[in-house]
Amino acid sequence: MPLVAVIPKPNAPVELREVPSPELEENSALFEVEFSEVCGTDVYLQQGRLEGVPYPLIPGHVSVGHLSKIRGRLFDVEGREFREGDRVTFLDVHRTCNACWYCLVAKASTRCPQRKVYGITYGLDDGLCGGWAEQIYLKPGTRIIRLDANAETFMVGGCALPTALHAVERGEIAIADTVLVLGSGPVGINAIILSLMRGALRVLCIGAPDQRLEVATQVGASAVFNFEEHDEGERLEWILDQTHGRGADVTIEATGAPDAVVQAMRFTRDAGRVVVVGQYTDHGPVSTDAAFNPHVDLNKKHLDVRGCWGSDFSHFYRGVQIVSHPVHSQLWTALKARLSRYTLAQASEALESVASGRVLKALIAPKFAT
Amino acid sequence: MPLVAVIPKPNAPVELREVPSPELEENSALFEVEFSEVCGTDVYLQQGRLEGVPYPLIPGHVSVGHLSKIRGRLFDVEGREFREGDRVTFLDVHRTCNACWYCLVAKASTRCPQRKVYGITYGLDDGLCGGWAEQIYLKPGTRIIRLDANAETFMVGGCALPTALHAVERGEIAIADTVLVLGSGPVGINAIILSLMRGALRVLCIGAPDQRLEVATQVGASAVFNFEEHDEGERLEWILDQTHGRGADVTIEATGAPDAVVQAMRFTRDAGRVVVVGQYTDHGPVSTDAAFNPHVDLNKKHLDVRGCWGSDFSHFYRGVQIVSHPVHSQLWTALKARLSRYTLAQASEALESVASGRVLKALIAPKFAT
Amino acid sequence: MPLVAVIPKPNAPVELREVPSPELEENSALFEVEFSEVCGTDVYLQQGRLEGVPYPLIPGHVSVGHLSKIRGRLFDVEGREFREGDRVTFLDVHRTCNACWYCLVAKASTRCPQRKVYGITYGLDDGLCGGWAEQIYLKPGTRIIRLDANAETFMVGGCALPTALHAVERGEIAIADTVLVLGSGPVGINAIILSLMRGALRVLCIGAPDQRLEVATQVGASAVFNFEEHDEGERLEWILDQTHGRGADVTIEATGAPDAVVQAMRFTRDAGRVVVVGQYTDHGPVSTDAAFNPHVDLNKKHLDVRGCWGSDFSHFYRGVQIVSHPVHSQLWTALKARLSRYTLAQASEALESVASGRVLKALIAPKFAT
Amino acid sequence: MPLVAVIPKPNAPVELREVPSPELEENSALFEVEFSEVCGTDVYLQQGRLEGVPYPLIPGHVSVGHLSKIRGRLFDVEGREFREGDRVTFLDVHRTCNACWYCLVAKASTRCPQRKVYGITYGLDDGLCGGWAEQIYLKPGTRIIRLDANAETFMVGGCALPTALHAVERGEIAIADTVLVLGSGPVGINAIILSLMRGALRVLCIGAPDQRLEVATQVGASAVFNFEEHDEGERLEWILDQTHGRGADVTIEATGAPDAVVQAMRFTRDAGRVVVVGQYTDHGPVSTDAAFNPHVDLNKKHLDVRGCWGSDFSHFYRGVQIVSHPVHSQLWTALKARLSRYTLAQASEALESVASGRVLKALIAPKFAT
Repeated sequence: MPLVAVIPKPNAPVELREVPSPELEENSALFEVEFSEVCGTDVYLQQGRLEGVPYPLIPGHVSVGHLSKIRGRLFDVEGREFREGDRVTFLDVHRTCNACWYCLVAKASTRCPQRKVYGITYGLDDGLCGGWAEQIYLKPGTRIIRLDANAETFMVGGCALPTALHAVERGEIAIADTVLVLGSGPVGINAIILSLMRGALRVLCIGAPDQRLEVATQVGASAVFNFEEHDEGERLEWILDQTHGRGADVTIEATGAPDAVVQAMRFTRDAGRVVVVGQYTDHGPVSTDAAFNPHVDLNKKHLDVRGCWGSDFSHFYRGVQIVSHPVHSQLWTALKARLSRYTLAQASEALESVASGRVLKALIAPKFAT
Repeated sequence: MPLVAVIPKPNAPVELREVPSPELEENSALFEVEFSEVCGTDVYLQQGRLEGVPYPLIPGHVSVGHLSKIRGRLFDVEGREFREGDRVTFLDVHRTCNACWYCLVAKASTRCPQRKVYGITYGLDDGLCGGWAEQIYLKPGTRIIRLDANAETFMVGGCALPTALHAVERGEIAIADTVLVLGSGPVGINAIILSLMRGALRVLCIGAPDQRLEVATQVGASAVFNFEEHDEGERLEWILDQTHGRGADVTIEATGAPDAVVQAMRFTRDAGRVVVVGQYTDHGPVSTDAAFNPHVDLNKKHLDVRGCWGSDFSHFYRGVQIVSHPVHSQLWTALKARLSRYTLAQASEALESVASGRVLKALIAPKFAT
Repeated sequence: MPLVAVIPKPNAPVELREVPSPELEENSALFEVEFSEVCGTDVYLQQGRLEGVPYPLIPGHVSVGHLSKIRGRLFDVEGREFREGDRVTFLDVHRTCNACWYCLVAKASTRCPQRKVYGITYGLDDGLCGGWAEQIYLKPGTRIIRLDANAETFMVGGCALPTALHAVERGEIAIADTVLVLGSGPVGINAIILSLMRGALRVLCIGAPDQRLEVATQVGASAVFNFEEHDEGERLEWILDQTHGRGADVTIEATGAPDAVVQAMRFTRDAGRVVVVGQYTDHGPVSTDAAFNPHVDLNKKHLDVRGCWGSDFSHFYRGVQIVSHPVHSQLWTALKARLSRYTLAQASEALESVASGRVLKALIAPKFAT
Repeated sequence: MPLVAVIPKPNAPVELREVPSPELEENSALFEVEFSEVCGTDVYLQQGRLEGVPYPLIPGHVSVGHLSKIRGRLFDVEGREFREGDRVTFLDVHRTCNACWYCLVAKASTRCPQRKVYGITYGLDDGLCGGWAEQIYLKPGTRIIRLDANAETFMVGGCALPTALHAVERGEIAIADTVLVLGSGPVGINAIILSLMRGALRVLCIGAPDQRLEVATQVGASAVFNFEEHDEGERLEWILDQTHGRGADVTIEATGAPDAVVQAMRFTRDAGRVVVVGQYTDHGPVSTDAAFNPHVDLNKKHLDVRGCWGSDFSHFYRGVQIVSHPVHSQLWTALKARLSRYTLAQASEALESVASGRVLKALIAPKFAT
């Protein structure tokens, strides 16, 4: 019976369990986990900060491994059939229905009410549906991609890669624009890399702590600024100094702090674009101090502010193409040096490292010998 | 010497003065005013609520009249030369520079720092540059349009017409969408008309008082709701009832109340669009009660929120085309019945009527015999 | 056993047959046909001009009727369950896979290689899969919509309604634009109606014969021109006369004639848009006489030329909303007077009427007593 | 008196002349030429293949040099005043009017009928208005940009840089797309560089001769193909092999051959985009052999085909930013090695080198000692 790591309930420590291998449905597969990710969402899962989550559950939504057993037939989007032994990854979002108003009329599939997410909205009752495990059960309809990339290059992007890619897409960067990234966590760092790849001439980053800003610089940020050492006024002045007094053309907010959304508007030039991708968890309302003024901050600036929720298969697919490319994959090299690996038994430790910010990206490697 | 009405300084009553007729520069004209508008901005001008305004000034930014004297040659955008006697109107925005970064690189001319506005940012020192006057001096470079429409049909749209047209353009309504308009003042009413013309199947309106909601219904709103009689929760419920529980596809906020911007987000369906066009004056920050939560209200909803500032010649031109069309101009018929006309000597009275909301649209008719 | 009309092979007359009622799969239904459409595609089917069509087949892709039998559970996009007896229609396109590169990465589902179309790419071997029949078998996954509209109003739009709606969507008409529609068949007529609904101030139409141009005028075209009576030069002159010498802002080509694609470019103003929706069948290459010159006709004009293939559920859904609306449905009133109804036994006659152009829209009414 | 090179009339050899220095109008300048470009358009000018060109004329539209004399005041778009001695370049397009329907309503300023182009539509009668000269007269309203870049890096881009940048912008490349560039002349080579900078994962190039394809590879093309050695069928097969059988996501046609426009459609995947930027001169209609079939090549493919004419200040400005950037400018290093420099007296020789294709980019250096 495969070993899994489970969050039994909010605020309880991670536990190891054995779960019986499932009987495969037609057109499904068993996936042997090589690496699975530990991300900020997993920290929130452990803290019980996400609504509607079915505890106990096996965390781990982005994973890489190989198909050990296939029942029926499975194909990739190019129509190539999968074979047992293939090295693959899969889109954590499952069961986007393609039958509801959001899928079919609004064409906003990340808001489909039927969607399930491996490692987040599937619980232990659903079976082997999270990546902190020796095996994952890939249910029928799971979108699988063959992975030729180096496993660690792919995992260092992790779920932040499609998330940041979606945000960059929403930003509609014009060639030679100046982009400002707020936040230097995984989504922020990936947004820097992808903004540069997408035509930005310069990417500025405001984040913390200094070690992360150092990573931001390594992946290509033109200039970085530590928000813990400078108040909002100083940050604004810094941005204006870098942009002929105008502000950034595009700002990608990837912080998790509600007030940063208002600051993002202020740091952006008139008629620019702000993408809000840092508010995946409810951290409450914008503070009174932030003093969000729709006349000054939004209407008079003729600003576009764009929420960016989730990602779909296209973002995941494009992300895999990029990290599988011999040249472009090197953009993640600086990050790879920062990876920390943990066994299933060390999952609680991995969570703490991520929660504390000591580690930029942690992986669970279930077959890793301790 | 032409007679003009002047706001001498903030909070002072309007005064009548005589101003010498200007010596015309090359390629300029004198314009005899038939009607000039009294709008909410004029109320704010009188109350001293706009920054950087050069008192004393002659209000009146949208006007209709005829060219009584031309020096040099003047042409419309189609290349037809103007003649003395032509019935025309002109874009109140003047001197958009076509030489700055905003004009040439961002292509956001409504944010050009050089732009001047007749009746708002031109003061009495600049000469006959406002419409509450027997004559206006059309300086070189003023964008003039021949007007075949009925003068009152055009004026009942007034400055709200290009403003609402720009907002509707920013809303990117898809055919058969449900649009929600917040506010039932001139911009709101024009937004209802233009949303329907632009493909909305249904337009809902939340406003007040009942007389204005009656106008909203007359111009085509499918359903209206009085915000003075219903709290935010009831308004949300009303919207959801009308939209299969989803919210409006597109919301146009045209209220002037900061908190309405947050409500607009909540009243809009996931992955919809909110256009913020009601915050032309600084009414301070969003209130603590509004509790703007970027996770719930923006990011998770995958929402687009678009500030909409000013309008350019294209909006003015398209607006004139529409009200000049024999069929489409009838969309403003219900409004025409609500027009109130005032002489120059009655300008203070006109301002009070607009400020109190008793009158939907007031016109100054300088040649109107009392 | 339900009676059906069958095209046995290319160029053979339509035959009546009896086909056994299917055993229903889980989540499928039987649909009793009230009306099914006879459109230009059916003429081409009979003439053997479409590739890859599985003869014998039952034509009829857009139909209205009611659900006589449901096995399992069926829901609409709003999540409401269907009941036996419900009056419905359904999207003729079936089995768009949501699993291939075109569906998931390009998001161009009308180019999904897996899609099947009732009445066109389903053959008799697939069962009751065409509308010229007493019953249709709605296979699992068929997208069904409850229909509150008058059946004839809906059918007079027919398959041309979503096709034209898609084309109008692709045209990105700006409010107050002048649109030119080439062709006065069903797609052209629906494009006129929808262009007006979508913000065009004026719609011009070049078509033939005069009876159809009369319909164009009745549904709102500002001016019409008979291409049979005027050569290309005269047509161009006519367009320029109507548009200040510039050409149409948006042209929708809905003719079926290859050379019309080149003319559409010439009739459109510089930097305008051309939507090509009239080339659904292979009529061979553009003629030498047409003399398509990419410098003059395309590059120097800075033109956008947009092919428009098929339609997806969103177009069908929006079309149904429009014809179900008490006011907007009246836009099709002029067309309803032109409907011709035929029994199953008269199917060959119906085809001839459509092929000859004598009839604008023919319906098969299987339960119609002759 | 400054020395200039003049094309006296079509097909006549270039002559040297002396032209009196102009008396400067208010807010104008004299510009000392360091380098001016010899491009394909100059070849066509000499061959008399452009319409409406006022011979005799001084060719040379993109130039770099310094301001030797300023009368009045000149500012850049950031509002910084120019001083005599500043190293600058300027947009060759002049007098875009900002007053006509194309400028103000269509917002398509590259189709403004008033625009003049230094070195192309200004003739010798207009004064020192071309770059093959010791001095250029920068008339009032000329858009000047301070140039910090290496002069040769900037000139190796030349007029192809903003042209290709505009084309890439029109292509709306999605991140990780495969782009196909047809043509390996200056526009094609710049399109390769900019497509990569704008998010393409792979850029394919079909061109000739082999030396140019070698340059294409040096600047980053993933694969190249010689069209002189392979017929259309082989080219199509080559593209399909590289793209999972689908075709390129975006094709940029930059060839000058009419038939290439049709091939571009065929080489592009369904629902992709084709940008036509290679048809700046009239080379006649598409050939009968090309057999442009709107059903197969356009409508069924659901293709977007976009003409791309000229470039505006934004493209020029962004291009200057890119070549002034320490890292990005290196993308043009491979091209710099291919530059050939000529004196004014060698202008005919320079034209021949460009016409023959022996030289990729030739510069006139008027102060170059022979």
